[in-house]
Amino acid sequence: MSETIDSSTISRGAILGSRKIHVAGPEGIQVPFREVTLAGDEGAIALYDPSGPYTDPAHQVDIAAGLPRLREDWIAVRGDTELVPARLVKAEDDGLRSHADLANREVCPAARTQVRRARAGANVSQLHYARRGLITPEMEYIAVRENLVRANLGRLAAAAAPDAERERRLRGDARGAGLPVDMTAEFVRQEVASGRAIIPANINHPECEPMAIGRNFLVKINANIGNSAVASSIGEEVEKMVWSIRWGADTVMDLSTGRNIHTTREWILRNSPVPIGTVPIYQALEKVGGTVEDLTWELFRDTLVEQCEQGVDYFTIHAGLRLRHVPLTAKRVTGIVSRGGSIMAKWCLVHHRESFLYDHFEEMCELLKQYDVSFSLGDGLRPGSLADANDEAQFAELETLGELTKIAWKHDVQVIIEGPGHVPMHLVQENMDRQLRACGGAPFYTLGPLVSDVSPGYDHFTSAIGAAMIGWYGTAMLCYVTPKEHLGLPNREDVKQGVIAYKIAAHAADVAKGFPGARLWDDAVSRARFGFRWQDQFHLAIDPDTAVAYHDATLPADGAKSAHFCSMCGPKFCSMEITNAVREYAASENAAISAAANGVVASADVAKGLADKAREFKAAGAELYQAAR
Amino acid sequence: MSETIDSSTISRGAILGSRKIHVAGPEGIQVPFREVTLAGDEGAIALYDPSGPYTDPAHQVDIAAGLPRLREDWIAVRGDTELVPARLVKAEDDGLRSHADLANREVCPAARTQVRRARAGANVSQLHYARRGLITPEMEYIAVRENLVRANLGRLAAAAAPDAERERRLRGDARGAGLPVDMTAEFVRQEVASGRAIIPANINHPECEPMAIGRNFLVKINANIGNSAVASSIGEEVEKMVWSIRWGADTVMDLSTGRNIHTTREWILRNSPVPIGTVPIYQALEKVGGTVEDLTWELFRDTLVEQCEQGVDYFTIHAGLRLRHVPLTAKRVTGIVSRGGSIMAKWCLVHHRESFLYDHFEEMCELLKQYDVSFSLGDGLRPGSLADANDEAQFAELETLGELTKIAWKHDVQVIIEGPGHVPMHLVQENMDRQLRACGGAPFYTLGPLVSDVSPGYDHFTSAIGAAMIGWYGTAMLCYVTPKEHLGLPNREDVKQGVIAYKIAAHAADVAKGFPGARLWDDAVSRARFGFRWQDQFHLAIDPDTAVAYHDATLPADGAKSAHFCSMCGPKFCSMEITNAVREYAASENAAISAAANGVVASADVAKGLADKAREFKAAGAELYQAAR
Repeated sequence: MSETIDSSTISRGAILGSRKIHVAGPEGIQVPFREVTLAGDEGAIALYDPSGPYTDPAHQVDIAAGLPRLREDWIAVRGDTELVPARLVKAEDDGLRSHADLANREVCPAARTQVRRARAGANVSQLHYARRGLITPEMEYIAVRENLVRANLGRLAAAAAPDAERERRLRGDARGAGLPVDMTAEFVRQEVASGRAIIPANINHPECEPMAIGRNFLVKINANIGNSAVASSIGEEVEKMVWSIRWGADTVMDLSTGRNIHTTREWILRNSPVPIGTVPIYQALEKVGGTVEDLTWELFRDTLVEQCEQGVDYFTIHAGLRLRHVPLTAKRVTGIVSRGGSIMAKWCLVHHRESFLYDHFEEMCELLKQYDVSFSLGDGLRPGSLADANDEAQFAELETLGELTKIAWKHDVQVIIEGPGHVPMHLVQENMDRQLRACGGAPFYTLGPLVSDVSPGYDHFTSAIGAAMIGWYGTAMLCYVTPKEHLGLPNREDVKQGVIAYKIAAHAADVAKGFPGARLWDDAVSRARFGFRWQDQFHLAIDPDTAVAYHDATLPADGAKSAHFCSMCGPKFCSMEITNAVREYAASENAAISAAANGVVASADVAKGLADKAREFKAAGAELYQAAR
Repeated sequence: MSETIDSSTISRGAILGSRKIHVAGPEGIQVPFREVTLAGDEGAIALYDPSGPYTDPAHQVDIAAGLPRLREDWIAVRGDTELVPARLVKAEDDGLRSHADLANREVCPAARTQVRRARAGANVSQLHYARRGLITPEMEYIAVRENLVRANLGRLAAAAAPDAERERRLRGDARGAGLPVDMTAEFVRQEVASGRAIIPANINHPECEPMAIGRNFLVKINANIGNSAVASSIGEEVEKMVWSIRWGADTVMDLSTGRNIHTTREWILRNSPVPIGTVPIYQALEKVGGTVEDLTWELFRDTLVEQCEQGVDYFTIHAGLRLRHVPLTAKRVTGIVSRGGSIMAKWCLVHHRESFLYDHFEEMCELLKQYDVSFSLGDGLRPGSLADANDEAQFAELETLGELTKIAWKHDVQVIIEGPGHVPMHLVQENMDRQLRACGGAPFYTLGPLVSDVSPGYDHFTSAIGAAMIGWYGTAMLCYVTPKEHLGLPNREDVKQGVIAYKIAAHAADVAKGFPGARLWDDAVSRARFGFRWQDQFHLAIDPDTAVAYHDATLPADGAKSAHFCSMCGPKFCSMEITNAVREYAASENAAISAAANGVVASADVAKGLADKAREFKAAGAELYQAAR
C-alpha cells in the first residue's frame, strides 16, 4: 500500500452556529452536547451529539494517535479484566497471500499489542453489571446524555417554557414504551438489566462515548461504511465514519469485504467515539477465498476473537437462519437478499447440516461476555421486496432469534435483533408486535423498512418513511439506507443524505413517542421561524450548511438574514408578518370576541365591542406591506 | 415585457425506457399510460401517467397554440353551455397601472375571446351530472385510467401473475376506504355523486385530461408553482408545470403573487393537461395594491369570474376562517401561517366583521356551478409548527369547513378540504378522523404534514413522511413541499425533488391501502432486481434518469448493466447471485427438508435425505464467486 494516511483529510470543526459543551455528571463525567446559542433573550439549547471530539475546535485531530481513551480507567478500576498479548495478525486477516505481505500494511500506530480480556470466569458485560445492581460510569454517562430536559433547564429562556395545554395536547403516544419521566442512571441500569436496552461497549474500545440502544431511550441511527471489491481506501473509510457521526450517526457498521479488512477496522476503531459493529462472516468468508463450503466454526471463532480484541462493539450474527428455513424462501420473489443470510443458507445446503452459528451459539456467548461484545442477531431472511414481507420464512427466523435471545440473556450477553427490509406501511406494525413478543422486549434494529420498491435512487427516503413509523412503534435503532441503495456504492454526499434522512425519521419518532424534551428542538426552530430569527433557524437546523445555502440561493444578501420576510412571499407580502400583527392585536384583551366565541355574551354587546375594536385597530395603522430592508 | 416565450425551452420526450400508449375506453376515449416494455418474456407494464402529450414524442410542442382540446366536444354535446364574450382583461388583472400597459403583455395566442358558461339556470358540475345518474365521458375516462388491473391484463407476463398466498398476506389495510374490486364508470359516478370524489374539470379547460380526487381512487399529488415578487418569468412557469407533471404531479396550483398573474395563468392553462388550482385571494389582494382592508366581495367575485372564464379547475377559498376563530390563535407558537388565512384574519379584524368569503359562500356556489369549478376549502388556520397541531383554532375552522361542504353540496358544487401542515406522527390519524366526520367524507387534501420542524432544507422529505401516512389513512391528494420550503423559492430541481418525494408517498399509500393493481409496479421492479435485469429496473424506476446515473457513478461500463452482480458487493460477492443458486436448489423437490420443516417426517429420514442432497448439490458445483464480466 502506497497510500498516505494523514489527518488533514478528516472532517472537523464546529457544526455551523453550534459549539461543543460538556454537561457534568457524577464523579467527573463530562457529557458532550451540541449547544446552539439563540438571539436576544432566547437563551440556548443543548442537542444530543454523537459527533465526538471532531466537532470540538479545541481537539487536535491525529488519527495515528487515535482518540483519547475516555473509558480506560472506568474499565480498569472494575478489576475484572487483565491485559494479555494480542492475537498475532495473520496474512488472511487482511486478505493477503503471505505473512511477508503484512509488512506492507499501513498499520495504525494506535493499535495495541496488549489487549484487555475478562479474568478467567468473569463476565464484563454491562448487562451482567446491571443485573448485579451495579451502576457503571457508562450508565451515569448515558443518563446525562439522554436527559434533554435536564440539559436544557436554565438554558432555554422562559419564553420557551412548556405550556400546559400544549403539552397535554401533544403528549406523545408511546405505544407501550415505558419512557422515563426523569432519566436517571438507575433507570438506565434497570433497562439494561431487563434486556430492553443495551450499551454496546467493548472493553477494547475505550475511545467510545457510551450510548444506549433501547425502546425507552432516544431512537438511534446506524450508518454503514466499508470498502468492497470495487473501491475505497483506509483514509476514506475513517473519513466516512467521522462524516457519518458529524451528521448524527449513533453507531457505525464497518461492512468491508475486500482487502485490508483488519487494518482498516483498526484505524476506524481507534478513531471512533461511537460503537462500531461488524458482520464477522464477511471477513471469515474472505479468509477462505470466498468458498462458502470451506467456512468452519473454528475459523469463524478465530475471526470473532480477532475482532473482540480489536474492540468491535457489536457483531451481526445470522444464527437464526436454520437449515429448515431455507426451503421456505423458494417461492419468494426476491429469495434471500441478506449477504450473511445467503452465505449461511448456502453453507447449510452444501453441507446439509444445521448452521454452525446456531450450533455454536452458546460458545459465542462464552466468548462475547469476556469482552462485552453485544449480539446483533441478523435477519438473514429479511424480505427484499414488498412481495416477500412478513412471510413464513421471515417470521420463522424471528422465532429462532427469540430462542437465541433467551440463551444470550442466560449468559448475561447483550442482544439486539435485526429487522427488515422491505415492508408496505400496513404491515410495519406487525413486525414490531411480533418482534417484541418473540424476543422478550430485546431492542429492535431495522433496516428501513422501505415502504415501496419503485424508487431506486431515492431509497434513503422511501425507507425512512418506514423507519419513522417503526421507530414510533418501538424500534430502538434504525439502520440507514443511502440514495445509492440497490444501485451502487455510496459516496460522501450519499452517506450524508442517508444519515440526515434517518436523523429526521428518528427524531420524528422521538416526538411521536413523547420522549421527554425531544420536542424542545422543534419548538425552538418554530419560534425562531416565526420571529424571523433567520440565523437561529439556520443554526438549529439538522443541517445548517444546507439551510443557509438554500436561503442564499434566493436571497444572498446579508441583510436578508435579518429581514422580516422570507423569499417565499417576497418582501411585499408575508403571512408571518401579517399574522404577527394579527396576533398582537388579538391577544390584546379582546374580551368581546373571545367571549362571543364562547357564546356567553349577547350579540348586541359583541357588535359594540367589534366596532370599538375596529376603530382601535385602524388607528394603530398596521400596514400589510413592509418596506424591504 | 421583452421576454420571448418560445416552445423550445419546454421539456419533452419519452421518460427513459417508457413509451406513451393509449388504452381505449368506450366511444373513442383514449386514455394515456406510461408503458415499460420488459426484457425477454416478461411482457410490459402500464403505469398511471399524468404527464400529458409532452412525453409523447409524436406530439409537437407549441405553447402558443396550446394543447388539443380533448374535452371540447364532450362539453359541447351536453348542450347545457353557451359561448359568451369573455370578460375584458383589466390592467389590474396583471398588476398594471394603466390600460395602456396591457398592450405590452405577451398574450397567449391560444387565449379565447369567447368563453363557455352554463346556460341560465343550468348546473354543469360533474357532481350535478352524477347525481342525476349521468355517466360522463370524464367518468368513463377515469374508470379506464384508474383501472391498473385491467390496463395490465395481458400485458404482464404469466411470471408476474398474482400468487394467492402472497395476495392474502399483503392484502392492504384500507382503513375504512371502499376500494373497488373493479373500477367502472358507474363506480366513478357513484363516488362523485356521494361527494367522496371530485373531478376538477372547468368547462373552459377542455385541454385537461380527466382525473379523480377521492379516497377510493389512487392517491394524487399536487405541485405548486408560481412567480412571486422576487423572481421568475412566464416561460419558466409554463416549464415548471410541464416539468412537474413529467415527474408525476396530478394537479398543479399556480400561486403567483407578483405581476402578470392573469397572463401567466392563461399560458399555463392553455398548455396544461392536468387540473389547475389557484388561490384567488392572492390576485384580489394584488388588485387592491396589497391593502387587505380594501378587499371587497365585489372585487373578489370579479376575480372569480375572471378565473372561471380562464379555466381554473379549483379554487382555494379560505371561507372557513371566521372572525371568532382569530383569537383562538393568539397563544400559538406560529400564529397563522397560511397566506390566505392571514389575509382573511386581518380583514376580519380591521373591519370587525364576519369574513366576506363566509358571508357570500352561497353566491360563490351559484357562480362556480356555471363553470364546474371545484372548491378547495382552505385551512387558513393550519398549524405552522408541531406545537400548534390539532389545536382548538385548527379544529374550529374544520367544523366550519364541514358546514360549508354541506352548503356546496346543496348546490351540487364539488368540494375538497385542505388540511395541515405540521403535525407529529401520533396526531396525524386524528386529523383524518376529524376531517371525515366534520366534512361528511369529502376528499381531504393535505400539505404534508411535516412530522418535525427541525429540518429546513429537507422538508420535502419530512413532510412526505406525514403525507405517506395520511395518504394511507384516507387523504385523497397530497400537496407537495420542496426542499426550499421555509427557506426560498424552488428551482427546477427542487420541484422535481418535491414531486418525486410525494409520488413515493402517494404510491406507498396506494399499496398500503391495497388499491387494486398498485403493487404490480413494485413487484415488477423486484422481479427485475432479482433477475439482474438492470435495464428493466432503471426503466421501471420512478426516476429512470437518476437510477441510471447512480448506477453509472460506480459501474459506468455498459457491460455492468447486464452483469449478474451489482456494485454494492462487487463482482466477487453477490447475495442475490448466491440466493438464486440457493433458490433453484431449494425449489428442486426438496421434499425431505420441507417435510421436516412441517414436522411430519421422522428425523432419521431427514438425515438421510439431507446427506443425499448434500452430495447432489456439491456435484452440481455451484460456485460462489462469479467471474467479472
